[in-house]
Amino acid sequence: MKLLYPTSIPLDTQSLEGFSVTLQPYDVKSPIPEEHTDAEILVAWTNSADNLKDAAKRLTKLRWIQALAAGPNDILNAGFDTSKVTITTGSGLHDRTVSEHTLGLLLNAARRFYEMRDYQLQNKWPGHLGGPQPDRPKNAFTTLRDANVLIWGFGNIAKALAPHLTALGAVVRGVARHPGVRNGIEVYSEDKLPELLPSTDALVMILPGSESTRNALNAERLKLLPSHAWVVNVGRGTSVDEAALVEALKKGEIGGAALDVFVKEPLPEDSPLWSAPNVIVSPHAAGGRPQDAEVLIADNLRRFLAGQALKNVI
Amino acid sequence: MKLLYPTSIPLDTQSLEGFSVTLQPYDVKSPIPEEHTDAEILVAWTNSADNLKDAAKRLTKLRWIQALAAGPNDILNAGFDTSKVTITTGSGLHDRTVSEHTLGLLLNAARRFYEMRDYQLQNKWPGHLGGPQPDRPKNAFTTLRDANVLIWGFGNIAKALAPHLTALGAVVRGVARHPGVRNGIEVYSEDKLPELLPSTDALVMILPGSESTRNALNAERLKLLPSHAWVVNVGRGTSVDEAALVEALKKGEIGGAALDVFVKEPLPEDSPLWSAPNVIVSPHAAGGRPQDAEVLIADNLRRFLAGQALKNVI
Ligand SMILES: NC(=O)c1ccc[n+]([C@@H]2O[C@H](COP(=O)([O-])OP(=O)(O)OC[C@H]3O[C@@H](n4cnc5c(N)ncnc54)[C@H](OP(=O)(O)O)[C@@H]3O)[C@@H](O)[C@H]2O)c1
Ligand SMILES: NC(=O)c1ccc[n+]([C@@H]2O[C@H](COP(=O)([O-])OP(=O)(O)OC[C@H]3O[C@@H](n4cnc5c(N)ncnc54)[C@H](OP(=O)(O)O)[C@@H]3O)[C@@H](O)[C@H]2O)c1
Repeated sequence: MKLLYPTSIPLDTQSLEGFSVTLQPYDVKSPIPEEHTDAEILVAWTNSADNLKDAAKRLTKLRWIQALAAGPNDILNAGFDTSKVTITTGSGLHDRTVSEHTLGLLLNAARRFYEMRDYQLQNKWPGHLGGPQPDRPKNAFTTLRDANVLIWGFGNIAKALAPHLTALGAVVRGVARHPGVRNGIEVYSEDKLPELLPSTDALVMILPGSESTRNALNAERLKLLPSHAWVVNVGRGTSVDEAALVEALKKGEIGGAALDVFVKEPLPEDSPLWSAPNVIVSPHAAGGRPQDAEVLIADNLRRFLAGQALKNVI
Repeated sequence: MKLLYPTSIPLDTQSLEGFSVTLQPYDVKSPIPEEHTDAEILVAWTNSADNLKDAAKRLTKLRWIQALAAGPNDILNAGFDTSKVTITTGSGLHDRTVSEHTLGLLLNAARRFYEMRDYQLQNKWPGHLGGPQPDRPKNAFTTLRDANVLIWGFGNIAKALAPHLTALGAVVRGVARHPGVRNGIEVYSEDKLPELLPSTDALVMILPGSESTRNALNAERLKLLPSHAWVVNVGRGTSVDEAALVEALKKGEIGGAALDVFVKEPLPEDSPLWSAPNVIVSPHAAGGRPQDAEVLIADNLRRFLAGQALKNVI
């Protein structure tokens, strides 16, 4: 049995030895060489669209793709025959990196570092943002302490993020498909959003990109947020109705938006998001650095060889 | 006995009742009214320089000033007779707010939100900051995970900050006058700086403003930092030699500087810090929101009346 692993990321392949599997490196930006089209397992990271499209046609023995991305929309769109090929995501490999970035975006919003920057570029002291300030005023998002943070898409990343927010004094709630308590956080189903959104100071979206999440945050739901509430999106751009978001920002119906993901990336130069009030544009920079990928690959490889259910099946 | 408390901050004075002390509000921007110049205790917050100078002359019975600022340099400079008047600081009231801001500055630096902003203002996607990135590269400060963070001035704020950094995976060490382990963090004396600085990815300065801390971070010590290291200062501006800092930044001898405090505030329009490379200017915005001041006042009031040693004596 042959496993192809990408050279686009340093992998400790030694830790994958001992399985009766041939480990073969491959270049993610070129077609797979003819002699390796017999591979049954493909590990994918930053593959070009062409590489994936070609692989979908030529890797006729393929049975499993282990993506290292948490949301491998590119692989889902490449035309693999999903009746034969199981796709597993890299969910879990990005928890710490995306958590850190999300925490940074929330603090950037609360402490208004983006606004300070605009002043700095003009050699101007933004006195209104410093000196004595009201402590935790109502109807403002100026600190995470006592802030109500709602995480929509309460999966692996959210579980890693929540303790940092709680430690800073935030009150964290979650939304997912299946309600219940997860890691000590109360997670609600989407039908509870009308009750949750009006008491939210910061809404963190970590939804995967799929038909079921398209425009999840739409005009109607944006209107339910208080006018000081921030929206942070580190999941997928498609889960937010960008036109409705721009409207809400321009009308001051929400406090601001810190976005790491967009419907179209790179964000087109003529997008109104660049200059809508209180928008922070981050260039899909939250993750992009899978950590401990070998552990997930080895775990799933063992399961695959033993005929057990894989982890992170889409 | 009379205690004057400031009207510049909402205080729950009910929680200060039950002591045999008259509680009298006063305006921190005007001279103290004649009938209250008999006060023995003054609680101070955002007092004007004139108010303090006047109080130093006219409050002839004064025995104790409880500052709500952690670093009440204004009070120290107002001319109170310190042989008669004990000054206690508000150290402890700003731990959470300054910690949060410092964490935000560190993430702003690591995740380069300030640079993203510059691109955003030009409708430009900073592609080099997003997408696939090396994970925790050596010789770069791109994440707190596995970063060596040195906190110089390891007092109350540092104790509150350290757990957040540790939780994000940073390796935290401290420097203070007295070495030893504090809250599980190894704290060194300043003579160990030559060994500590070369292995520091982010140096966080939380020193008080005093003669002994003036230009603590000077040209010589800046040179000991690796060229990717960031300096974050949330203590007092005087503890950094600003000219040496600008030099180090311009020459790329350090990675950047996130500064909340400056020798002169507001930072003068012609300061080279505004536009030195990789500088983040924050307008003394870390604290400024004392939290639970009543608890400290009540505790010290009880000690004062019992003739015990006060907390936070300068
Ligand atoms: N910005 C970046 O650089 C970056 C990096 C990594 C990942 N991401 C994105 O983040 C997403 C989440 O990653 P993760 O590892 O946390 O994934 P995960 O563990 O699979 O969690 C996804 C969460 O979303 C919920 N969910 C899925 N579909 C939903 C729907 N239609 N309505 C409501 N909730 C829904 C799931 O609910 P249940 O638990 O109830 O099923 C789950 O809680 C990825 O799919 C990826 O798109 C972005
Ligand atoms: N940016 C803001 O908005 C803001 C807000 C609040 C406070 N601050 C500043 O932050 C400072 C620290 O506050 P804090 O509450 O953490 O104070 P703290 O608890 O008194 O801690 C001060 C620390 O600095 C150390 N230190 C003092 N002088 C030193 C010297 N000459 N050399 C080396 N270390 C020295 C002390 O060492 P030992 O423990 O060994 O004595 C102590 O660890 C304040 O003085 C204030 O200036 C700024």
